[in-house]
Amino acid sequence: MDFNFFKQNNINVDLAVEAHEIVRGQTGQEIPGCRMDKETYTNATVTIVHIEEKYAEEIMGKPRGTYITIEAPAIRENNRQAHQDIVEVLGKQLATLFNLPEHANVLVVGLGNWNATPDALGPKVVGMTLVTRHMYHYAPEEIRGGMRSVSALAPGVLGITGIETAEIIKGVVDRVKPELIIAVDSLASRAVERIGTTIQLADTGISPGSGIGNKRTGINKETMGIPVIAIGVPTVVHAAVIAGETLDRLVETTKNDPNLLAISQKMNSQEFQSIVNEVLKPYTSGQLVVTPKEIDQLIQNTATIIAGGISLALHPAISIQEFANYLH
Amino acid sequence: MDFNFFKQNNINVDLAVEAHEIVRGQTGQEIPGCRMDKETYTNATVTIVHIEEKYAEEIMGKPRGTYITIEAPAIRENNRQAHQDIVEVLGKQLATLFNLPEHANVLVVGLGNWNATPDALGPKVVGMTLVTRHMYHYAPEEIRGGMRSVSALAPGVLGITGIETAEIIKGVVDRVKPELIIAVDSLASRAVERIGTTIQLADTGISPGSGIGNKRTGINKETMGIPVIAIGVPTVVHAAVIAGETLDRLVETTKNDPNLLAISQKMNSQEFQSIVNEVLKPYTSGQLVVTPKEIDQLIQNTATIIAGGISLALHPAISIQEFANYLH
Amino acid sequence: MDFNFFKQNNINVDLAVEAHEIVRGQTGQEIPGCRMDKETYTNATVTIVHIEEKYAEEIMGKPRGTYITIEAPAIRENNRQAHQDIVEVLGKQLATLFNLPEHANVLVVGLGNWNATPDALGPKVVGMTLVTRHMYHYAPEEIRGGMRSVSALAPGVLGITGIETAEIIKGVVDRVKPELIIAVDSLASRAVERIGTTIQLADTGISPGSGIGNKRTGINKETMGIPVIAIGVPTVVHAAVIAGETLDRLVETTKNDPNLLAISQKMNSQEFQSIVNEVLKPYTSGQLVVTPKEIDQLIQNTATIIAGGISLALHPAISIQEFANYLH
Amino acid sequence: MDFNFFKQNNINVDLAVEAHEIVRGQTGQEIPGCRMDKETYTNATVTIVHIEEKYAEEIMGKPRGTYITIEAPAIRENNRQAHQDIVEVLGKQLATLFNLPEHANVLVVGLGNWNATPDALGPKVVGMTLVTRHMYHYAPEEIRGGMRSVSALAPGVLGITGIETAEIIKGVVDRVKPELIIAVDSLASRAVERIGTTIQLADTGISPGSGIGNKRTGINKETMGIPVIAIGVPTVVHAAVIAGETLDRLVETTKNDPNLLAISQKMNSQEFQSIVNEVLKPYTSGQLVVTPKEIDQLIQNTATIIAGGISLALHPAISIQEFANYLH
Repeated sequence: MDFNFFKQNNINVDLAVEAHEIVRGQTGQEIPGCRMDKETYTNATVTIVHIEEKYAEEIMGKPRGTYITIEAPAIRENNRQAHQDIVEVLGKQLATLFNLPEHANVLVVGLGNWNATPDALGPKVVGMTLVTRHMYHYAPEEIRGGMRSVSALAPGVLGITGIETAEIIKGVVDRVKPELIIAVDSLASRAVERIGTTIQLADTGISPGSGIGNKRTGINKETMGIPVIAIGVPTVVHAAVIAGETLDRLVETTKNDPNLLAISQKMNSQEFQSIVNEVLKPYTSGQLVVTPKEIDQLIQNTATIIAGGISLALHPAISIQEFANYLH
Repeated sequence: MDFNFFKQNNINVDLAVEAHEIVRGQTGQEIPGCRMDKETYTNATVTIVHIEEKYAEEIMGKPRGTYITIEAPAIRENNRQAHQDIVEVLGKQLATLFNLPEHANVLVVGLGNWNATPDALGPKVVGMTLVTRHMYHYAPEEIRGGMRSVSALAPGVLGITGIETAEIIKGVVDRVKPELIIAVDSLASRAVERIGTTIQLADTGISPGSGIGNKRTGINKETMGIPVIAIGVPTVVHAAVIAGETLDRLVETTKNDPNLLAISQKMNSQEFQSIVNEVLKPYTSGQLVVTPKEIDQLIQNTATIIAGGISLALHPAISIQEFANYLH
Repeated sequence: MDFNFFKQNNINVDLAVEAHEIVRGQTGQEIPGCRMDKETYTNATVTIVHIEEKYAEEIMGKPRGTYITIEAPAIRENNRQAHQDIVEVLGKQLATLFNLPEHANVLVVGLGNWNATPDALGPKVVGMTLVTRHMYHYAPEEIRGGMRSVSALAPGVLGITGIETAEIIKGVVDRVKPELIIAVDSLASRAVERIGTTIQLADTGISPGSGIGNKRTGINKETMGIPVIAIGVPTVVHAAVIAGETLDRLVETTKNDPNLLAISQKMNSQEFQSIVNEVLKPYTSGQLVVTPKEIDQLIQNTATIIAGGISLALHPAISIQEFANYLH
Repeated sequence: MDFNFFKQNNINVDLAVEAHEIVRGQTGQEIPGCRMDKETYTNATVTIVHIEEKYAEEIMGKPRGTYITIEAPAIRENNRQAHQDIVEVLGKQLATLFNLPEHANVLVVGLGNWNATPDALGPKVVGMTLVTRHMYHYAPEEIRGGMRSVSALAPGVLGITGIETAEIIKGVVDRVKPELIIAVDSLASRAVERIGTTIQLADTGISPGSGIGNKRTGINKETMGIPVIAIGVPTVVHAAVIAGETLDRLVETTKNDPNLLAISQKMNSQEFQSIVNEVLKPYTSGQLVVTPKEIDQLIQNTATIIAGGISLALHPAISIQEFANYLH
């Protein structure tokens, strides 16, 4: 038996690799309709999970599509060379997820709250993104050749705007008419070791209930009418997960001792759940997050890397050094 | 003769009282089609300019409508009681500019750039505004009685988003369908003494070319399809204005001396203009702003007052003290 | 048996009321040499713990002195009137902890990191404190009568400065020669319900190992040579505490079931500890904190209240409304 | 005749190259006791002014010493490669100004106000500086070989602390006992074109009255007891300078016309000054600054470059890429 905290709590597992691990852990075998590839780079390991069939979709709790996870512990370090390598891996992987004409119009969306450091990743990326749309029509043809028309938006969070994030984005999409959305979000991970070391790309956009802000409506092809690529970085773990993991590990530890086995037999998920609730009171599950004390450095590093990767992927014919000659 | 710097530079005079002063200064008499009222409070002087006729509209360079200017030097001081008084004056004046049903849906828009202190007023107000829209449908009738459904948006600036601010707002308006927009913006004044001491309310919204960010498209009834009230606070003076004012004053000083009069006879506006351009090079007019060194305190004080005034005006049946019992 | 997580982890219990609860919980009786008073206000409950004897000092893990805890859940609400009430309670309680001449020189120190929202309380309070020292000598006697000479310092955190906070403060104290330090710090609580709802005042200053930043050296009379009053607000709970509390509660739950009792008999603290470590890997205890998602609002509210309370206590003869007439 | 605005206003010319230009402009010949060298790099021009004699000291209004000015317009662009080049030029030039043993102890001081974007350069650099002092004693010998013990401090500004910046630094110096201070400050320039494009290094430290904050006490060898290198970047021009420059240029323009010459003969400096005062009222000279609207980007770029240059100069044996392997 497993406490299976995530199912019990309806906590969305934001990372596909984590969902994959959980499901594999339970069943012990590969998931039908789900395919996994791995690529290794100096400073990054890339895992690509293809969810291809309805069965896999259901068991993984994630829509069909491609989920690319870049694991790069060097993000947490202050190493510029390693960061530059990760920018290139990110740019290359991101480019595999879309197929756009030369002059395509792309909207970068940075989700989250710019006033709260652990949730400020998206707005920070927006501030660092090379936007070109407002000068695109004035630029001479030979420059536009290697660039796309990029705009960016930081819509804010529901608690501050009173408006669903998806509504704001849809309103802007209806006017700007981009051909692709790239949405950047802070994620909640299941494991603290993933905080600030993992980047997930998904061509399925953002599902309802995911991210730190727990969006009520999805930001995806269904709601937006155009493809949405989500770039997510875990910056927190829900406090409830820490509590749940602790119980799970205790049960695991006691499994081999017939006396202690009692605990997992006598207590059910509901009893476990009420212990967790008691610890987190008066907050409800999802309102409390776990984050490193040095979250400011981590957000700064990650935002720089993501903004760089997006620019590389969107403006392929122009080197990052040349940008400045034309723009800003 | 007058150098008439503003006409020459196409610098929009954001404040109606300033436009009024300039026009009055030139003609020496009251402007036909323009009416002015004054009200005096302990900590504020209120000037209400009604632009009523086409002639006044043209000569003032501002659309027909009501412009309320609250002059309150105490904003710059750290006096809580005075600030509370100004909040009440603001709330009362603001309420005269709209006529909305009890359950009306209002969108507060904070223009400007949250990363640059002198332009951060709008986004700060959004962060302090009491938004209710996302919980409005769940609130019991007896509470909703005194409240309106308020949402808020900080769309960012063109240089960061690549999207005209008006486009973003229009997109959101089409989805949220408010009955009124209240748009908060940092203004450029003609006089440094107005920085952080003057609040302008206008039922004509925001004209193209106004504000620090020099919007290319207006945010008004014409572009939005619903009434727009603009709340503006001067936080900067354009550097070009400082240079122009200096020349204007020099000419003024020399007027009474026949020898010195030569200066205003021999030199034309273009020569004056090229002097100003030379001083500001390589920046163009409008890219350089003059702001007090202690701009951070001033933005904090002003944002608090404006957020308070908006809440008072929008939620009349509920005292500001009671809010917290229901919300947040 | 109790897992007694705090002892095992050497996690300092920052709040005296929590230490008191833990000790009382273990022994079931009042602690000799320790005296407790309670006062009740509309929006606040005040608990005053006097640690008077060496025995109490040791068992509580806190030096002899007075610890005032203001519990005020209304801080988390957006209610200005309630906040004003709490400011007054805080000002009054703070004033009981010092006895200073009229013209005394006081240094307010804001500990923490202004770049990371959950640790930004201290620097925010510094930004809002009414400092008078730099204009004190120029002020006329009749004004100085009701004011003290106040200065303020935000020394930063060890990870950014490379210097122990206590060293920086001592250096400044040696030059400014204040007669009292008031040090404001973010605390780590044992209970999430205390986050942003509790203010602790202590005339013993700050002990080594306390606060979010886990100071290595104390900031107290011993190290500074003058009295130090600490004002602390819990803004986080250590992630390790969440895990530990979960285990403690499980043990508690199983106590009454003879079968389940096995768990607390078979497993020792070390086994429990290794479970917690596993959950938090690769972070060590103390590097991960639990914080509400809306931490930005909470820090803003709390800083405003604390800055107000300090001003009330330090400048008794002048009402808060009058300040602005003289200063800033 | 020249209006000679700076002398009249007692505005310190922060940049030695500007003082040099002014003096040269007045006398038309090289200044005795003053020597100037130039070096040219791809993305930077370096001017080294040596003030060697008492006469030059007096006429330039700057103490004897070496002033290195790096002019690099590419700082304002978004070009990473150019930024990296400038970091290297800065690191190399900075290293010529000190001569320290391998294990020397260096304190980096970031002057200015972290809450007001145009004055936030110093504190931003502190946040990005690689501090090593707190882990220096624990690091193995082979690592320490190429590194120095670096600490950093952002003391804040007089208006917020009530304490002279020099006092705070001296207090910390007395405890940390560094062998060198590197002080980073936002400067006021005489020309807007220098904003964010010029970096000045000076081995004379910071004189009283210089910088945006107009320090009342110098931060130099005399006050600190150890060498102080100042790194300054113009981020503003005083508004009074804009007004003064406008008048100066007008006078210049009228010089060749005998009729207009009257203006510079009839009006004296005092009359000019009263015009400037009138334009800036109620602010006094020095309280109003001129800054580009996009000051946030500029501060971010400049801080990154300066922090990089400092690290290169202080830790010569270790490449910037290797740092991350040891530190954080």
